[in-house]
Amino acid sequence: MDSRVMTLQEVEGGVTAARGFQACGVHCGVKKAKKDLALLVSDRPAATAAVFTVNSVPAAPVVVDRSLMQRSFYKRALVVNSGNANACTGERGMQDAWTMVTTTAEALAVDPADVLISSTGVIGQFLPIARIAQGIRSAAQVLGRGGNADAAEAIRTTDTFPKQYAVSFEIDGTPVTVGGMAKGSGMIAPNMATMLAFLTTDAAVAPALLQAALVRANERSFHRISVDGDTSTNDMVAVFANGASGARALASADDPGYGEFAEALEKVCGELARMIVRDGEGATKFLEITVSGAASEEEAARGTRAIANSNLVKTAMHGEDANWGRILAALGNAGIRFDPARVEIRLGQLPILQRDFVIDFSEEEAAAILAKPEIVITADLGEGSGEATFWTCDLSARYVEINANYRT
Amino acid sequence: MDSRVMTLQEVEGGVTAARGFQACGVHCGVKKAKKDLALLVSDRPAATAAVFTVNSVPAAPVVVDRSLMQRSFYKRALVVNSGNANACTGERGMQDAWTMVTTTAEALAVDPADVLISSTGVIGQFLPIARIAQGIRSAAQVLGRGGNADAAEAIRTTDTFPKQYAVSFEIDGTPVTVGGMAKGSGMIAPNMATMLAFLTTDAAVAPALLQAALVRANERSFHRISVDGDTSTNDMVAVFANGASGARALASADDPGYGEFAEALEKVCGELARMIVRDGEGATKFLEITVSGAASEEEAARGTRAIANSNLVKTAMHGEDANWGRILAALGNAGIRFDPARVEIRLGQLPILQRDFVIDFSEEEAAAILAKPEIVITADLGEGSGEATFWTCDLSARYVEINANYRT
Repeated sequence: MDSRVMTLQEVEGGVTAARGFQACGVHCGVKKAKKDLALLVSDRPAATAAVFTVNSVPAAPVVVDRSLMQRSFYKRALVVNSGNANACTGERGMQDAWTMVTTTAEALAVDPADVLISSTGVIGQFLPIARIAQGIRSAAQVLGRGGNADAAEAIRTTDTFPKQYAVSFEIDGTPVTVGGMAKGSGMIAPNMATMLAFLTTDAAVAPALLQAALVRANERSFHRISVDGDTSTNDMVAVFANGASGARALASADDPGYGEFAEALEKVCGELARMIVRDGEGATKFLEITVSGAASEEEAARGTRAIANSNLVKTAMHGEDANWGRILAALGNAGIRFDPARVEIRLGQLPILQRDFVIDFSEEEAAAILAKPEIVITADLGEGSGEATFWTCDLSARYVEINANYRT
Repeated sequence: MDSRVMTLQEVEGGVTAARGFQACGVHCGVKKAKKDLALLVSDRPAATAAVFTVNSVPAAPVVVDRSLMQRSFYKRALVVNSGNANACTGERGMQDAWTMVTTTAEALAVDPADVLISSTGVIGQFLPIARIAQGIRSAAQVLGRGGNADAAEAIRTTDTFPKQYAVSFEIDGTPVTVGGMAKGSGMIAPNMATMLAFLTTDAAVAPALLQAALVRANERSFHRISVDGDTSTNDMVAVFANGASGARALASADDPGYGEFAEALEKVCGELARMIVRDGEGATKFLEITVSGAASEEEAARGTRAIANSNLVKTAMHGEDANWGRILAALGNAGIRFDPARVEIRLGQLPILQRDFVIDFSEEEAAAILAKPEIVITADLGEGSGEATFWTCDLSARYVEINANYRT
């Protein structure tokens, strides 16, 4: 942690904490009774950056958003429905996605190119598009600065709690805010996890720089979490920067204030990402996995991902077992350079594997660490200075039950 | 199935079904009471081929075997202990592994370069090498043609049944046999799965051709199974060809009889591989996953692997849910070329996803198929003629219990 971290102040307000944004969440009838449609609007064109799922079966809204991002890097509105992902729905799904775009544009009197859309929920079923269109028109009437909680509520599927976070900092004495909301990878009945996050800021940031900042923040947050290793058809992270703070515009990574902005964005992404893991289905343990001493940050990240996605490591943590062998073997499957004899593995501060395969630790101490709901695992490879951290949860019998039996 | 398959006759005898091989399995004291040491000997030098784990934390016996294979492609003996994997044991582990080699060579009066070794069991603990050395000397006294069952028994760890298989066929009227034994990926308390398979044949095959045949057979069998996607530090498949059948020697893939030999080897590897999956920990369903219509066999294989290693697919099958969406999304994560709108997915013969996302099937029919202990999933990509099949098991709450709680 360097001193800059201390300049970030956690604030209320989630996705509307930044000036110039309004939001709401309404019930339109995709779900039986719960809120299922969120609208987010900027009072002026906001530079926009987005990253989408790499799954080669992208859902219709992802295909449409990629097209909209090519038309304009400035957006005014985002609409999200939950309860139905509009995925694997062919031509009709594409038509429905475009209807969401045009309905939103008409309701807000903006250009269709100023809109982004997103859907999450069941796949393989057509959207109830008439209800969604009516919901969009209703939502446009109830937008407000205090709508962040309803919006975060409306994008939930099986999430057990809404996820929002925001921080403020200063650029040359001018307060600037970055906030956001997310929905987690509780698996979506009846099909799969979707990970969505939407961020807002009143900083003024050039689109290309904003995209670079988002890619980096995403790489160190949402890209470093997993619940079960599957990537959905609808995953999406977008950030809107409307400049309403009045702070100096950021056009280059060298501009004063950009470092703080990038740090704030990474902080909000990281907090939302960790909330998603804490809400993983069936999770009983939150696992923070760091690989240090790797040849590069990229190799360290691959090491953390191999450990985090190993069912054997995840079940060992569920069973509160100081199983360094499974951790080392998972590293061995990561395809990265290291000498096993130089590896050190720690649970919290307790070394459970020292160099040259020295095993000398108290099982009681390990048990006390493993009994806690949050476990920090560190593997030092002794190769270089590359370091990365990944967040995941344990694998429980409850996870299997949730995902095996939802229709019975 | 082409007509050649019908020329393979299943026979008894496992790893000693082929002429000129003897084996035994004894108790030497790594385990409390069960057999824990197997010895396999050819009465003449046998051309030998082997493939080893790609895990970058290879166990000491794997490191030693790679060195021994560089010294000579002809072997006389294999010794395997269960109960301790001699993995992550540093310099002392290497010394112990070499002691297994030299003790076996002395007991059988062969050159150390004529020996291969293997270990499976707990990792991170030193071998009880004195007991193992004594066991090797004892085993050398009780070798026999009928020792195959004891040998298959002695390489078990948590396997619930021993795994052996053999077939015979003819080359120019001369009977030739290929047999083998394997141990499965029931996870090894307290650490990880190890997959071992040892094959014997009385065909005469040049070492380079034998290696090529093994690589291909392995690619289509052991490389196409998984229980949980983890690769162990000790995995190994080896084949010994001693020529005792008297059939014409095979030196080139064009030689008459080579096609039959390669097919027999693939058949034995495939049967042993499927036995391993059936014995997967906590497994309640055996899943055969075929991807057809891919751009290449390699892309088809990647598709099957992505489906088989998806926890979401595995839990859906456990829950007997016709969840085509999870199968399609898993394909989307395989990194292969296809158009989602052209994909067809079948359970057994029942299409559950047709082209253009047409969903029109009877849930009752699907439920009847999914209620069976063996489920065949086929995904046709409509791209080309590449096809591959993969075998795996479902993911059950019992798997989690076994792997979370073995020390409590």
